[in-house]
Amino acid sequence: MNVGDRHYRTIWLNEDGRSVDIIDQRWLPHEFRIVTLRTVDDIAVAIRDMWVRGAPLIGVTAAYGMAIAMAADSSDTALDAAWEKLHATRPTAINLRWALDEMRKLLRPVPERERAEMAYRRAAEIADEDVELNRAIGENGLAIIRGIAAGKKPGERVNILTHCNAGWLATVDYGTATAPIYLAMEAGIPVHVYVDETRPRNQGAQLTAWEMAGHGVPHTLIVDNAGGHLMQHGDVDLVIVGTDRTTANGDVCNKIGTYLKALAAKDNSVPFYVALPSPTIDWTVSDGIREIPIEERSGEEVSLVWGKTASGEIAQVRVSPEATPAGNPAFDVTPARLVTGLITERGVAEASRSGLKALFPEH
Amino acid sequence: MNVGDRHYRTIWLNEDGRSVDIIDQRWLPHEFRIVTLRTVDDIAVAIRDMWVRGAPLIGVTAAYGMAIAMAADSSDTALDAAWEKLHATRPTAINLRWALDEMRKLLRPVPERERAEMAYRRAAEIADEDVELNRAIGENGLAIIRGIAAGKKPGERVNILTHCNAGWLATVDYGTATAPIYLAMEAGIPVHVYVDETRPRNQGAQLTAWEMAGHGVPHTLIVDNAGGHLMQHGDVDLVIVGTDRTTANGDVCNKIGTYLKALAAKDNSVPFYVALPSPTIDWTVSDGIREIPIEERSGEEVSLVWGKTASGEIAQVRVSPEATPAGNPAFDVTPARLVTGLITERGVAEASRSGLKALFPEH
Repeated sequence: MNVGDRHYRTIWLNEDGRSVDIIDQRWLPHEFRIVTLRTVDDIAVAIRDMWVRGAPLIGVTAAYGMAIAMAADSSDTALDAAWEKLHATRPTAINLRWALDEMRKLLRPVPERERAEMAYRRAAEIADEDVELNRAIGENGLAIIRGIAAGKKPGERVNILTHCNAGWLATVDYGTATAPIYLAMEAGIPVHVYVDETRPRNQGAQLTAWEMAGHGVPHTLIVDNAGGHLMQHGDVDLVIVGTDRTTANGDVCNKIGTYLKALAAKDNSVPFYVALPSPTIDWTVSDGIREIPIEERSGEEVSLVWGKTASGEIAQVRVSPEATPAGNPAFDVTPARLVTGLITERGVAEASRSGLKALFPEH
Repeated sequence: MNVGDRHYRTIWLNEDGRSVDIIDQRWLPHEFRIVTLRTVDDIAVAIRDMWVRGAPLIGVTAAYGMAIAMAADSSDTALDAAWEKLHATRPTAINLRWALDEMRKLLRPVPERERAEMAYRRAAEIADEDVELNRAIGENGLAIIRGIAAGKKPGERVNILTHCNAGWLATVDYGTATAPIYLAMEAGIPVHVYVDETRPRNQGAQLTAWEMAGHGVPHTLIVDNAGGHLMQHGDVDLVIVGTDRTTANGDVCNKIGTYLKALAAKDNSVPFYVALPSPTIDWTVSDGIREIPIEERSGEEVSLVWGKTASGEIAQVRVSPEATPAGNPAFDVTPARLVTGLITERGVAEASRSGLKALFPEH
């Protein structure tokens, strides 16, 4: 999407036709830095140290990593070595594994001298496929926003609340939860976004707010505590969030705090939608609360807050006593009963086994 | 309560018998500073600049301010001047006004030479009355904790979640929401407290966590987003929060985010209690959501986070883009239907008009 006057993706082929440029997301929102990744080692560091993040973007970055590896050495040994090196960067990332397998499977039977070109072509395709997937989610979500706008006075804004960053920065472009918002902007519907700051890592404050500011979407940053109050007073027309994993019966695992917003939405009859690409549906799991293990992350993410000082330095400040331990569950599960609908690339599904089966009969 | 090995109140008469010592709360949790206030001007600054905060503590501090004023000049002119000066510090604080009126009404008919002594005596009484009030709330809440502990295996801890700081730092001692916790500790019941950090001002992370650490209460700091997830997994036995204002039908106005915790408690059958001294019941208001205006505070409280840097400096860091505006409603209203009970100094009331009337028939 736009960063000021110019359109960007999160990753693109450098004009040298071989290296890859990315937005180095570690410095957002305070600095907009573009970095050129020239070697498979550069790619590995960028993934491991979270210069790029978000499942789809990690997958695409890894695919380009395989291409860069092939450009340097297209032997079978180099192919396997690149797979191993890149897989080790974030070994639990499903999209990463998928992209690496996809590339190796494609390249293995091909003559060595053709591998690099084919790898770049397929990496570009995977990037484009992600954009198309998100655009399709966006179109399906746009229909919902149109419906809400139709019930308002002309020019009256549609207020959308979102949590965390399921935005274009987590994908190649458009994002998942944000895709309907960007398409609504394109369609001339007046939207306004309440951005949950999303403690502890503040992805809302740092990334979603930066996306909205860059693309010119009217928005207001709020603390995670504020959404319920806004809904009580009619200030939120709908909620759209992303998800890391959705179960076969429509339970939604997403960033910690999502469940609280879903409860408030239900209590105030505010529609609560989840935007997701269908590969994030885990057909092997039903009861999200009982079956999905929740990652417990470092308490320092809670105790230490990262930002920019008045003098322009990037610094961390401790907000709590040294003697106080912190708990940090990273995700929670929103039961399907609280979800109005699942916005997928094929359409909007009811959050239930039958609703998902109707859209994805092949599963 | 204790700060390490020693018991403190938030305010006490200095050993010179004339000045007043307070905990300067601006530096918590990073520094524990005690300051001596010697003049009515010192008192005014301490209230205005929030060296002390919390309605009960502000009232007591103002009462001592009147005493200090009388010790310097016990004329009618000085009495009125002190009232004016202290009232101007936080003109909307109900307790401040009450304490000033109480002192002036008492002192006006008394000969000038007796005023100072009487003023110190009454200020000390007001402080002691606050302690007794909170202790009574604590005893009534303790019965609830005892009941929960009785349903557990011996030694198994009772997990209590609290939001914001309704602790001893907001009062003279014990606090309101924390009083049952401190009394449970004294009674040998194993308690553990989940402390919501309470964005945007982080009173949980800064004050409640500091209280718990100082008094040796086992506790865990969590982000405001985490409580729902913990309740889903049976990790919270009860919630106790404070309130700024409770309506005649039991709606509870409290720090922003309280409503979200009440929804999660209801959804998971976790008892949700509100601790309050009866003077905070507003008998003139019924429907809290419709009738209570919510203060909108500066967006900078959201965008800028205050804490201690690695090098030990106190600093603010910006967590969001400069171009992003922030909304900051300071309170929300939890409807009575979500409240299990109101813990008052007279007993635990059902959160309803009839429940409150039964305990407070004089209203």
